[in-house]
Amino acid sequence: MKPLKIGILGLGTVGGGTFDVLTRNGNEISRRAGRDIQIVAVGARNPERAIKRMSGVAIPVMSLEQTVASPDVDVIVETLGGYEPAKSLILKAIANGKHVVTANKALLAMHGDEIFSAARAKGMIVAFEAAVAGGIPIIKALREGLVANRIEWIAGIINGTTNFILSEMRSKGLPFETVLADAQAKGYAEADPTFDIEGIDAGHKVSILAAIAFGIPLSFEKAHVEGITKIQAQDIRYAEEMGYRIKLLGIARRRENGIELRVHPTLIPAKRLIANVEGVMNAVLVKGDAAGATLYYGPGAGATATASAVIADLVDVARLIDADASHRVPYLAFHHDRIGTEPVLAIDEVQTSYYLRLRVDDKPGVLADITRILADNHLSIDALLQKEPDEGEAQTDIILLTHETVEKNVRRAIAAIEALATTRAKVVLLRLENLA
Amino acid sequence: MKPLKIGILGLGTVGGGTFDVLTRNGNEISRRAGRDIQIVAVGARNPERAIKRMSGVAIPVMSLEQTVASPDVDVIVETLGGYEPAKSLILKAIANGKHVVTANKALLAMHGDEIFSAARAKGMIVAFEAAVAGGIPIIKALREGLVANRIEWIAGIINGTTNFILSEMRSKGLPFETVLADAQAKGYAEADPTFDIEGIDAGHKVSILAAIAFGIPLSFEKAHVEGITKIQAQDIRYAEEMGYRIKLLGIARRRENGIELRVHPTLIPAKRLIANVEGVMNAVLVKGDAAGATLYYGPGAGATATASAVIADLVDVARLIDADASHRVPYLAFHHDRIGTEPVLAIDEVQTSYYLRLRVDDKPGVLADITRILADNHLSIDALLQKEPDEGEAQTDIILLTHETVEKNVRRAIAAIEALATTRAKVVLLRLENLA
Repeated sequence: MKPLKIGILGLGTVGGGTFDVLTRNGNEISRRAGRDIQIVAVGARNPERAIKRMSGVAIPVMSLEQTVASPDVDVIVETLGGYEPAKSLILKAIANGKHVVTANKALLAMHGDEIFSAARAKGMIVAFEAAVAGGIPIIKALREGLVANRIEWIAGIINGTTNFILSEMRSKGLPFETVLADAQAKGYAEADPTFDIEGIDAGHKVSILAAIAFGIPLSFEKAHVEGITKIQAQDIRYAEEMGYRIKLLGIARRRENGIELRVHPTLIPAKRLIANVEGVMNAVLVKGDAAGATLYYGPGAGATATASAVIADLVDVARLIDADASHRVPYLAFHHDRIGTEPVLAIDEVQTSYYLRLRVDDKPGVLADITRILADNHLSIDALLQKEPDEGEAQTDIILLTHETVEKNVRRAIAAIEALATTRAKVVLLRLENLA
Repeated sequence: MKPLKIGILGLGTVGGGTFDVLTRNGNEISRRAGRDIQIVAVGARNPERAIKRMSGVAIPVMSLEQTVASPDVDVIVETLGGYEPAKSLILKAIANGKHVVTANKALLAMHGDEIFSAARAKGMIVAFEAAVAGGIPIIKALREGLVANRIEWIAGIINGTTNFILSEMRSKGLPFETVLADAQAKGYAEADPTFDIEGIDAGHKVSILAAIAFGIPLSFEKAHVEGITKIQAQDIRYAEEMGYRIKLLGIARRRENGIELRVHPTLIPAKRLIANVEGVMNAVLVKGDAAGATLYYGPGAGATATASAVIADLVDVARLIDADASHRVPYLAFHHDRIGTEPVLAIDEVQTSYYLRLRVDDKPGVLADITRILADNHLSIDALLQKEPDEGEAQTDIILLTHETVEKNVRRAIAAIEALATTRAKVVLLRLENLA
C-alpha cells in the first residue's frame, strides 16, 4: 500500500520525539500498519532549528500555514501546544481535507466541540491519544477496550509535575516551595508552573476522560479544580500516620443526580496500587460495571512516550483513512447524536469522605463541641487523631476522617467549628477517596 | 444501522456473563458502537439449562452445530473452552463466513496458526481480547496502543489462581497444599488445577502476548514452563527478608540472539508496582523503547470481566464488519507476510538473575568452596544471606542472589556445588527479575 503522508507542526519535544521514533522504528511500525508512515513536511516557526533537529534527513521544512495547505499531506500532526495558532491551523487542516493527530489537551478541553464538529462535517479523523497520560494508551482503553462497560468512576494521577512534587514532599519531608524549585531545576516543572500546580492541566485531561467515559459534552468549565499549592508537610505526615497517601487526582464519577468532575489533592489508602505511583509517573484507575477496576500506569510525558501515543493514532488513521466514517470510533467514544444530558454537579453536591485538620485549645469540652457540630451536620467520624500538644503549647491538632457525605454538610460544619472560640485557625479540608 | 447478530456457543461463566452484560448495558453499548448487538442464537449442549439461564428472554436455543451454521448469525462467540469441539466449531463458523470472537487461550496457543490461516483465506475476523488477562484490554494495548514501539520485554501476572496462592502463602505463612485446598474451596482453583499451578495456562497466554509483541509465530511448544508447586514457605520468607516478592510471571524478552519465552516463579523487588498485585488480580508490564514501561492491571477472570473483553471485540467487529480486510488490525499485530524469524531461545540460553538456596554444613571453608565454584562459572554475587544454624543443628541455609548471567552457567555451578561433600540437599533455584 502507498505510504501515509504526514506533516508535523512543530519539532519541539513531542514533534521531535515523533520524528525520532518514526525514523528509528519505521520498519517495525510498517510490519504492523501494513504501510509506511512518511513525514513529507515539517512546519516550523524557526526553519533553521527544525533542519538542525533533523540532522541531515531531507524533509521539506516550511511555514506552519504552508504545511496545513500542502497537497502532499494526508495527516497533520499538531505538536505546538497552546490555543493559538494551534486551533486555527487544525481548523484549516480539516477544511483542507486533512486528518489531524494532536497532543493538545488544553485546546481539546476548551475548543474540542468546535474542532470535532468541523471534522465531522468534513469526514476527517481527529485523534488525541497523546493528550492524556503520554505513553499510556488510556484513550484507546476507555473508548474501545472498556466499551462494554457502564463506567462508574475514573480516578487518575494525570499530571507528572504535581505527582513528582507530592512524592518528594512525602519521601524527603520538604515543603512545597523547595520541591517546586527542585522540579524546575530538573525540568519537571515549567518556569511558569501555574497550569500544573493549580490543577488546570489535570482538569483539562479529566474533562476529556469524563466525556469519553460517560458520553457527556466536554465540560472543563464546570469542573472543580484545586491544585497542590496549599498542601503542607504536616498534612502529608498526618495522612501517612493514618494509613493514607496524598495524590492530586482527577476524578469523574457518575452519581444518580449527575456527574462529579473534580481535581484536588486526595487522601488514598496507602495499600492501593495507585497510591504507590511515585515521581513523574501517571496512572488512571477506571471502575467499570463489567470489567471491575482496571489500572493503566506509565510515563505521562516525555518525548518518546508521547510520540508512542501520537504514532499509535497515526497507525489508526493509516488503517481507516480510506474506510467509511462509520468504521471509525467516534471522537469522544459516543456517537454525537447520542450524547447524554447528565449535569455536572457543583462541588457542594459532591459526595466523598473528608480529612479535616483543626487547630484548637487543648482543654476539656472542645472535642465535645466539635463532635456535636459534626453530628448536627450529619457527619459521621471514621477515624480521629488527637495530638499531644507540644511542650509548653496550649493548643493542639485534631485530625478527623469522616465517612462519605455531601460536601455542603462539611462546609456548614466547618463554618460552625471555625466560629467556636476554642478554634485557633482555619480548618484544613482535604478530600478522601477509598477507590474500592 | 442494522444490528450485529451474534450466536453464543455455551452459556457458562463467560457466555452467561456476555449474555448478562449485553442485556444490561445494551443501550450504553449501542450509543458507542452506533448499532445494537443482538444475540440471535445460543448454542448449548444442554438446551434446558441454557433456557433457564436466560430466565425468560426469548432467544432461540439450538445445538452448537446448528448455531455455527445459522444463516442469521454474523459473529460466533465461542466460550466453550478446551480444544474440541471448540476448534472444529470455530473452523466451521469461518467456513460458513462468520466472524469469531473467542476467549480460548489454550486453543489459540496450540492451534492459532491454523485458525488464523483459515480466517484470512475467508476474510473473517478472529478476535480474542478475552483470552489474556480477562477484563484488562491488554491485547488492544499491545496490538494498537503500543504499535509504535519496539517491544523489549513483557512480564505478566496472567494467572489469578497462582497469584492468589502465592499471595496467601506469603501473607499467612501457609504451605502450598493448604492454600491450594482453600483456593479450590473458594472457587479460585479448579478440581484439577494442573493447567494453572503448573504454569501451562500462563504459558498459553504469554505465547500469545509474545507473538503480538515481537511479530513471531505462536510458540507455546518452545516456551519454558514451570509452575509453583515446588515453592516453599521458607523461600517466600527469605525472599522477603532480602526485599523481594515471589510471583509467577510469564516473561517474553527480546535478546540479540532470539526471544526468551518462559513462565516460572520469579523474585521481583518488593517496591515494584507489579510486586504488589495481590490475590486473583492480573497485571502485565510492557517495556517498549518509546513508551517506556507501562502497566495494565485488573481482574484476570470472572464472568463480567471476561464478558467486557468479549464485547469489546464484538464492537470492533461491528465497526469493521463491512470494511475491507486491510482496514483491520492483523490477528497477531503484524502482517502475516512480515512475521519475524527470531528463534525462541532454549532455557539454557536465557539471561536472568538467580536466587539460590543451599543447605550446607556449618563449618569453615564451606563458603570459600562455594564462592570459588561461582567465580569459576562466571557468576557474580549480588547479595548473600547466611542463616545462623538452628539450636543443635550442624547445617545451615545460605541464600545467594546473583547478577544477571546465562542460565547454563548457573546449572554448571549448581552441579558442582551439589557435588561437594558439605552440601546436604539439592540446591533450590529461583529466577529473579529487576523489571526496571
